[in-house]
Amino acid sequence: MLTLDMIYQARERISPYIIRTPLIRSQNLDRFLGCEAYLKLENMQNTVGVFKLRGALNKILSCPMEELKNGVVAVSSGNHGKATAFVAKMLGIPATVVVPETAPRIKIDAIKALGAAVVLTDTAERFRVGEKLAREKGVPLIPPFNDELIMAGQGTAGLEIAEQQPDLDAVIVPMSGGGLMAGVSAAIKSTASGIRLWGAEPAVLPRFRESLKAGKAVNVGTAHTVADGLLTGIMGDKCFEVNAKTVDLVGDVTEEYILKGMKLLIMEGKILGEASSAITLGGVLQGVYPVEPGMKVCFFISGGSVGLDQLDQLKNVTYES
Amino acid sequence: MLTLDMIYQARERISPYIIRTPLIRSQNLDRFLGCEAYLKLENMQNTVGVFKLRGALNKILSCPMEELKNGVVAVSSGNHGKATAFVAKMLGIPATVVVPETAPRIKIDAIKALGAAVVLTDTAERFRVGEKLAREKGVPLIPPFNDELIMAGQGTAGLEIAEQQPDLDAVIVPMSGGGLMAGVSAAIKSTASGIRLWGAEPAVLPRFRESLKAGKAVNVGTAHTVADGLLTGIMGDKCFEVNAKTVDLVGDVTEEYILKGMKLLIMEGKILGEASSAITLGGVLQGVYPVEPGMKVCFFISGGSVGLDQLDQLKNVTYES
Repeated sequence: MLTLDMIYQARERISPYIIRTPLIRSQNLDRFLGCEAYLKLENMQNTVGVFKLRGALNKILSCPMEELKNGVVAVSSGNHGKATAFVAKMLGIPATVVVPETAPRIKIDAIKALGAAVVLTDTAERFRVGEKLAREKGVPLIPPFNDELIMAGQGTAGLEIAEQQPDLDAVIVPMSGGGLMAGVSAAIKSTASGIRLWGAEPAVLPRFRESLKAGKAVNVGTAHTVADGLLTGIMGDKCFEVNAKTVDLVGDVTEEYILKGMKLLIMEGKILGEASSAITLGGVLQGVYPVEPGMKVCFFISGGSVGLDQLDQLKNVTYES
Repeated sequence: MLTLDMIYQARERISPYIIRTPLIRSQNLDRFLGCEAYLKLENMQNTVGVFKLRGALNKILSCPMEELKNGVVAVSSGNHGKATAFVAKMLGIPATVVVPETAPRIKIDAIKALGAAVVLTDTAERFRVGEKLAREKGVPLIPPFNDELIMAGQGTAGLEIAEQQPDLDAVIVPMSGGGLMAGVSAAIKSTASGIRLWGAEPAVLPRFRESLKAGKAVNVGTAHTVADGLLTGIMGDKCFEVNAKTVDLVGDVTEEYILKGMKLLIMEGKILGEASSAITLGGVLQGVYPVEPGMKVCFFISGGSVGLDQLDQLKNVTYES
């Protein structure tokens, strides 16, 4: 089970290699969101522009060098692969990343630019393909979320939020496999108990909502979502165990509102964030969270791997109510 | 002549209505720019998303209410007009803004959305048209830059920079009419004397360079530039008087490098800034400033009025050297 100690140990281990990203007040978002908006800018994380670096670093730096000498394999919708490729490059070892063939070009190109090999596969098949590859190569498979060291790494972002803005009323975090939320919520609930944790998942993939109903992680299958980083069909069971205790509310956000959130973030917030990040703003626009004027709400901007071609889909989107 | 006292008075006058914008470290820009990059985010300024609000507020709030009752007229390439419209709306008075017909749609729409009337005119004719309109209406003309109260207002951003990051080595500021640089450089040179001030102007409109040679403000005529906020043919004489003393270096940046700077800012910095703001990054990429690794350099991100259609011109731009 994930503990606060593990998150502090992760911070000790990874802090030389990560950026303590800015947490800024974004006042121009207030009138659209109906609360006092803050942004935790993990889209400015070191080189890869995504929080995933925290977990990948913590996991890989915890492996014995002997195990790593032939490299690593990762399975990823894109961002965890970038993070793994970055760490492998830093350590001078090879990396292979298994990516769904639907992943955006910008993420695939970034993984290759970091020197890793990319294997494209069907979304539903990707974990099986990754496990097989790791076995064949005799190298560790770096999991994207369902692992205490990964969760602890992501949790270091939660420690920063609680230190940077301890008077927050709520933090809204995107959810997919649940590793980010598990780490962040465990860190925040253990250190700044007044802050509520709200999750955001695509309405077409309501993993956490269904898992809460069932009392265990359930598979909701596959679906297309513009939030290309939030594709997982089933939350990790280790992540669910934490999130079931620490998350106060989960919002299921429609595709339409995810895009509204993304356009609001760039046009009014002046921040380039992925659809998978802006889902949190979309959820507020959709009315799924109990925000109020004067309430201090932090939006976890998880990543910024967005190609200019992906902005075309925003041209006819409106966010004014 | 602009004094530090006038800038402090401006701050007193305008601080209830403006945002003390974030100044952030942007570490992911370092390897492209060859220095430690900081960003002063005036693209996050209250509602209008541009520093111009500071000057317009200081000027208009200094006018006797009697003079203002029939409204105001402003001449602007877009952003000063947005700022004037915002202040007029706040005061409940009408505003008319004279804008060059080449101004981007997003700026014209924003002025109208704030309730002001827009008069489109030829770029070279715009000041004459504005003066005539103000005379006919019997209302004050709110100048965009060549005015001590405007300069003092813009200078409040300089006070903030010197307080937020006093150990900077240099600040790079976009230059057009010169009001922003005059205010910011006067504020910084009077309060944090170790910080150097570097200007950036489009190479096709080298107003300040030519004025320095001549020892007075000279008109370089009109030219097309992607930096649509930096169109002025001649620097204000009051601005030149200050800038000639306070600016350490001016860089003339080509159109190609302005676009490179803009793409770098959004793709690696994750910040949406106008070409007129990103010209400062473009100048560093072009090699016109004496930056060095470890040098702390702040880029003044003056505004963020960029339509998604304007990003199309970045699609084939590269910034990797």
